[in-house]
Amino acid sequence: MTSLEDSESYLDPSLPIEERVVDLLDRMTLEEKIGQLAGSYIGVLADGPRGVDDVIDEIDEYHIGAAAPFGWGGSPNESIAEATDAARRLQKHALESTRLGVPLLFAADAIHGHAYIKESTVFPNNLGAAATWSPDLVERAAEITATEMRATGAAQNYSPTCDVARDPRWGRTGETFGESPFLVGALASSEIRGYQGSGPGDAVLATAKHFPAYGAPTRGEDAAPVDVSPSTLRQMLLPPFEAVLDEDVGAVMPCYNSIDGEPAHGSRRYLTDLLREELNFDGIVVSDWNGITQLHEDHRTAGTPIEAARQTRLAGLDIGSVAGGEHAQHIRDLVEQGAVSEQVIEDSAERVLRAKFALGLFEDPYPDPDAEDVLGAPAHLDTAREAVRKSLTLLQNEEDVLPLDDSVDEVFVTGPNADEMVHQNGGWSCNADTGVPGTTILEGISDTVDTDTVVTHEPGSGISTPDDVDAAAERAAEADIAVVALGEDWYLHEFGPSAETEGETGEFPTRNELSLPDAQRDLVAAVSATGTPIVAVLVTGRPLAVEWLAAEVPAILMAYYPGRVGGEVIAETLFGNAEPGGRLPISIPRSAETLPTYFNHLPHPQPIGADEHPASYDPLFEFGHGLSYTTIEYESVDVSRDAVRPDEELTVRATVANTGDRHGSEVVQVFGRDEFSSVVTPVRELWAFERVELDPGERTEVELRLSADEIGRFEQSHGERIQEGRLRLFVADRTFDLDVR
Amino acid sequence: MTSLEDSESYLDPSLPIEERVVDLLDRMTLEEKIGQLAGSYIGVLADGPRGVDDVIDEIDEYHIGAAAPFGWGGSPNESIAEATDAARRLQKHALESTRLGVPLLFAADAIHGHAYIKESTVFPNNLGAAATWSPDLVERAAEITATEMRATGAAQNYSPTCDVARDPRWGRTGETFGESPFLVGALASSEIRGYQGSGPGDAVLATAKHFPAYGAPTRGEDAAPVDVSPSTLRQMLLPPFEAVLDEDVGAVMPCYNSIDGEPAHGSRRYLTDLLREELNFDGIVVSDWNGITQLHEDHRTAGTPIEAARQTRLAGLDIGSVAGGEHAQHIRDLVEQGAVSEQVIEDSAERVLRAKFALGLFEDPYPDPDAEDVLGAPAHLDTAREAVRKSLTLLQNEEDVLPLDDSVDEVFVTGPNADEMVHQNGGWSCNADTGVPGTTILEGISDTVDTDTVVTHEPGSGISTPDDVDAAAERAAEADIAVVALGEDWYLHEFGPSAETEGETGEFPTRNELSLPDAQRDLVAAVSATGTPIVAVLVTGRPLAVEWLAAEVPAILMAYYPGRVGGEVIAETLFGNAEPGGRLPISIPRSAETLPTYFNHLPHPQPIGADEHPASYDPLFEFGHGLSYTTIEYESVDVSRDAVRPDEELTVRATVANTGDRHGSEVVQVFGRDEFSSVVTPVRELWAFERVELDPGERTEVELRLSADEIGRFEQSHGERIQEGRLRLFVADRTFDLDVR
Repeated sequence: MTSLEDSESYLDPSLPIEERVVDLLDRMTLEEKIGQLAGSYIGVLADGPRGVDDVIDEIDEYHIGAAAPFGWGGSPNESIAEATDAARRLQKHALESTRLGVPLLFAADAIHGHAYIKESTVFPNNLGAAATWSPDLVERAAEITATEMRATGAAQNYSPTCDVARDPRWGRTGETFGESPFLVGALASSEIRGYQGSGPGDAVLATAKHFPAYGAPTRGEDAAPVDVSPSTLRQMLLPPFEAVLDEDVGAVMPCYNSIDGEPAHGSRRYLTDLLREELNFDGIVVSDWNGITQLHEDHRTAGTPIEAARQTRLAGLDIGSVAGGEHAQHIRDLVEQGAVSEQVIEDSAERVLRAKFALGLFEDPYPDPDAEDVLGAPAHLDTAREAVRKSLTLLQNEEDVLPLDDSVDEVFVTGPNADEMVHQNGGWSCNADTGVPGTTILEGISDTVDTDTVVTHEPGSGISTPDDVDAAAERAAEADIAVVALGEDWYLHEFGPSAETEGETGEFPTRNELSLPDAQRDLVAAVSATGTPIVAVLVTGRPLAVEWLAAEVPAILMAYYPGRVGGEVIAETLFGNAEPGGRLPISIPRSAETLPTYFNHLPHPQPIGADEHPASYDPLFEFGHGLSYTTIEYESVDVSRDAVRPDEELTVRATVANTGDRHGSEVVQVFGRDEFSSVVTPVRELWAFERVELDPGERTEVELRLSADEIGRFEQSHGERIQEGRLRLFVADRTFDLDVR
Repeated sequence: MTSLEDSESYLDPSLPIEERVVDLLDRMTLEEKIGQLAGSYIGVLADGPRGVDDVIDEIDEYHIGAAAPFGWGGSPNESIAEATDAARRLQKHALESTRLGVPLLFAADAIHGHAYIKESTVFPNNLGAAATWSPDLVERAAEITATEMRATGAAQNYSPTCDVARDPRWGRTGETFGESPFLVGALASSEIRGYQGSGPGDAVLATAKHFPAYGAPTRGEDAAPVDVSPSTLRQMLLPPFEAVLDEDVGAVMPCYNSIDGEPAHGSRRYLTDLLREELNFDGIVVSDWNGITQLHEDHRTAGTPIEAARQTRLAGLDIGSVAGGEHAQHIRDLVEQGAVSEQVIEDSAERVLRAKFALGLFEDPYPDPDAEDVLGAPAHLDTAREAVRKSLTLLQNEEDVLPLDDSVDEVFVTGPNADEMVHQNGGWSCNADTGVPGTTILEGISDTVDTDTVVTHEPGSGISTPDDVDAAAERAAEADIAVVALGEDWYLHEFGPSAETEGETGEFPTRNELSLPDAQRDLVAAVSATGTPIVAVLVTGRPLAVEWLAAEVPAILMAYYPGRVGGEVIAETLFGNAEPGGRLPISIPRSAETLPTYFNHLPHPQPIGADEHPASYDPLFEFGHGLSYTTIEYESVDVSRDAVRPDEELTVRATVANTGDRHGSEVVQVFGRDEFSSVVTPVRELWAFERVELDPGERTEVELRLSADEIGRFEQSHGERIQEGRLRLFVADRTFDLDVR
């Protein structure tokens, strides 16, 4: 029961936030402050199903300050109505039935749209978004996501992923923006602007994750130890986090992994010394799911659960996201024992409250009663269409098989991902059996072709279980063209298709074998044997090692997980009503045996020379690769200087022309390297890029400015940024050398 | 022309070495001192062939103080006569035609015996030696190697390899003692005692290599960047070096790799701060082959070759091993420019001279005129036989196919390694077309079976090129048993079988695909199809991913590269005249896709539980595995304490019985782990072991003492050794928990 007096200034929106925070903190008991540092949830995680009433009990007993009532892997709330109802009930309780009426902070995993809610706008997964190389588009998509979240009452998004992908065996590779620290940093920054940019009431708190090094787990096993040198941590994994800290990201989530022997969740070195002191982060640090209990149960750096809690508090954690009443009780005990000081609690509570005020939660705590009009609104879906158009990446197109003629007599559509909305949305989205809205590839093709064109369909194969491959071959033989939609199932990190239905543990999502299961290979072989030309579409979270496919079929379109409107845009693109606008944000390796395979590797000495040394970068398809339906020419490329000082800017000007007869796009990519440097630096790194759209015959001058800061992404653990010596720039097929003075 | 006076006390062997060093240094010019820091060579490296006269020219011009006139990959000297003749001529010139008559230090790569000299005793390669788990045997083999080296005039051995193998794709895996830091450290220490133990005139200078982290190159590419955390460097890669420094190893060789962005050859952090200051090394640091030039050419941390030389000198290098006159000239220029101080030169020269005096080179500089009686002496070969017996590792023996009956009618011997001495010796040995002495597997079997038994032979396959597989199948069909000798060719790190004859670059020695080439798989399939039982023998430098073979054949014997007497001992063992005494010193993975696969990995968290997480260690054959022909039982295992303080010792007593009716051996292996520790520690580590031989019915009590120091191999970068908490020991199938107080 709230009982407020007029003098309670924390409720006065006209006062500065700092003043409101101080006032509120002054009124809070230690237990109330502790409650702000523990979150609860609805749904199924480790301990059986939990409902609204369970959370209400935790609010009453522990003053819990945060909750996740939204669709996630374990939540029952899939519709707007269910989700907003739960949020409304909980928030009402927090506001009206607690002493101080502090609103709950609702968080959601709206990773590529608010996609656990069926009616939402589902964008391409991050790797697909990265393929657009369009910070602007990523920002607009994030704005839409924030709007849809806030309409359902959610005010914190556990996004963006700032992790650089280092091993595609890792089941979360598709959640990243790829393998270039610079591209990841640029797109994560855009996403944060989109989430946080709209001001109190409309914005959501962005959460940069998973600090500092989730993207490099040993063996690609999710959450496995990160065994990299400090210089790799600095050169490759930290830069995106540095970039998003410049955008004032409101929250940071540590990674599950141990790094150099220290689990991030319990590491003062990473969460305080590095994040707060060196990188000046002043927002809130929120735990990942069971990141606290892992200290005891997995990493074994804590002998007891309460010791695990202690370590996270001393490390610098603010909110134990779904750690609930048990965590709150641990903190109470630790403070009582003197093992955690009240000041630590005070500081964390202050940060949490500041965030709540900044989000406008005290003024605008409830879901939008008209949320139905907001989620999946037509304008939102248009942006999703634009995202897919710019994302689809044409890997191979021998003899210009694509674009297809939409007036052929018969098109055969097959493959496990031809008619599967859930697969097409990918992980971090609703995987209900029915009612997930969207257009599948089969539906998209049927809608796109001429009315006289016959579209036939046979699945031909499951993801890893065989289907009627003979029926598929029969249909294929009759058709003029076969579209084979291959790839992976819905999955997210350790949650994959169940072992019973689709493959064994170790097949999805963490995979040793990066090619595709035999069932899909058999389907391709059978269709290929008919002689009907094949276009393969890969619906997948990440790179697949498909050298066998590239040898078998003329055309391959990488679709990533394209989301709700994916099917229609894939159809548009296959039939030439749109251009494949994507470029690979990650290398596609030849096989898992040749990992790691990334373009920005350090130089590998070749003691006996190149003849006896395998190539250190020999992917099936390179980072940055992506074909067009038109022809693009670089008429000129100029660099403004032939020498540069560390404090100077540098301009690259490229005149790019569309010399074909169709609309097309180009992503100007500026790579560079230090020719000589006091520590070893990558053979090539992405230093700048810009996406341009070009009508037939159009030319445009692209101007890219590189500051010392940009080039200095190669910051060393040694504290040096630009090295004396020579820089080499690579733009298209040109090379430029610059002296560094 | 030497012109010595009576007062030249450095020539007086009765004086203390330090006095002689000071006296000699006093007489030397700066150029003469610099000459002691540069080595020359005979043979072919980067710059065309070089002979004795070329080295003499360098002695005259640069006062060169070291040389390698012995067989190595590029040397023409394969016989005792050739090698000793060259050494004698060079040494004579150094002693009699230079001002001060300082003897040359001759170094050789006598990695598993002085094996570049045809007549020498060739022991199993290091991985095979490690399979003996016998420090005593390794020490005796090293003594023999030192004796044979010194007989040819060589006084420094570029051995032992102290590298811990972390990726079997790496072409030098077979040169290591495997994946356990403790086992590697124990065996490398024994080897050093063997090399250095015999005193001046008989001992050779051991060279611990490749400091600090050669065994963990990215992608398994030789010399590629080592991208590991400081804690892995400390826990996994450094311990063997710490162990051999306790044995007063005389020399250390840095690795080619960059580690945390710093190439070891140019790194003061590794060569001085770590090696000399923290680890108190006071011997000489010698470069690896082109380790100096790589700083400029590969790592690009030096803008010019002379800058590369400067960096190595400031880092702490003493001898540029084969860097020759050019390097000496660089040093002269650097001193003249003031870029390197005279004191740095003085210190290095002092260390080099001290080593020469300690080796007795001033008194005993020449090869033994009776070297022919020393190399490959009968007693030496007996020790080699013992080594192979204890090395051969029985991986699989379904239905007790082994041992074979030596009175069957017909034995068929096939496979690319059945009759190939050069393959059998492996890398770092003479790979001449003819005249390499030894017994092949085919010869060994022919000598072993009854006179009535027919032995037939068809190669059936090359290493990677097909041969007459039909002929092999025909012979196999007629035989009672087929012995198929598979595996790899002679190779050493980047030198492999040439691309023209046997496979492409990337096939050997650095390999992506760790199974075997199709030609060998086809041979096994064809022989298997005949129904004749197959025994597979793997002649290979390293683990092969042979899950397919294990499914196809009942018995697999891992032979490593067994060396000169390998064929006879393999035959003995197959026919039961000897027991397979080896245990795997490294895990055999299921595939290269599942790498890394080592038993001593850090715990991998499983956010969703084990069902959704692939096993983090799931090898085809485990570390420590090896079957016996007899049955061994652990009648009791006891641990002396249930609690331990960091300064206390701990005793494990195991009573082991041979309950079968044949002689056999057992290696008692004590594994342990920290149950909880302040930083993450491996799930299991080898802490102690002892090999025992047991006659039928015999039992013995093995007592293993573990000191805090032993357990404390888990030294942390954080400076803590034993952690408070609980230790868990694993011995055979028993588990013991100990509190740490």
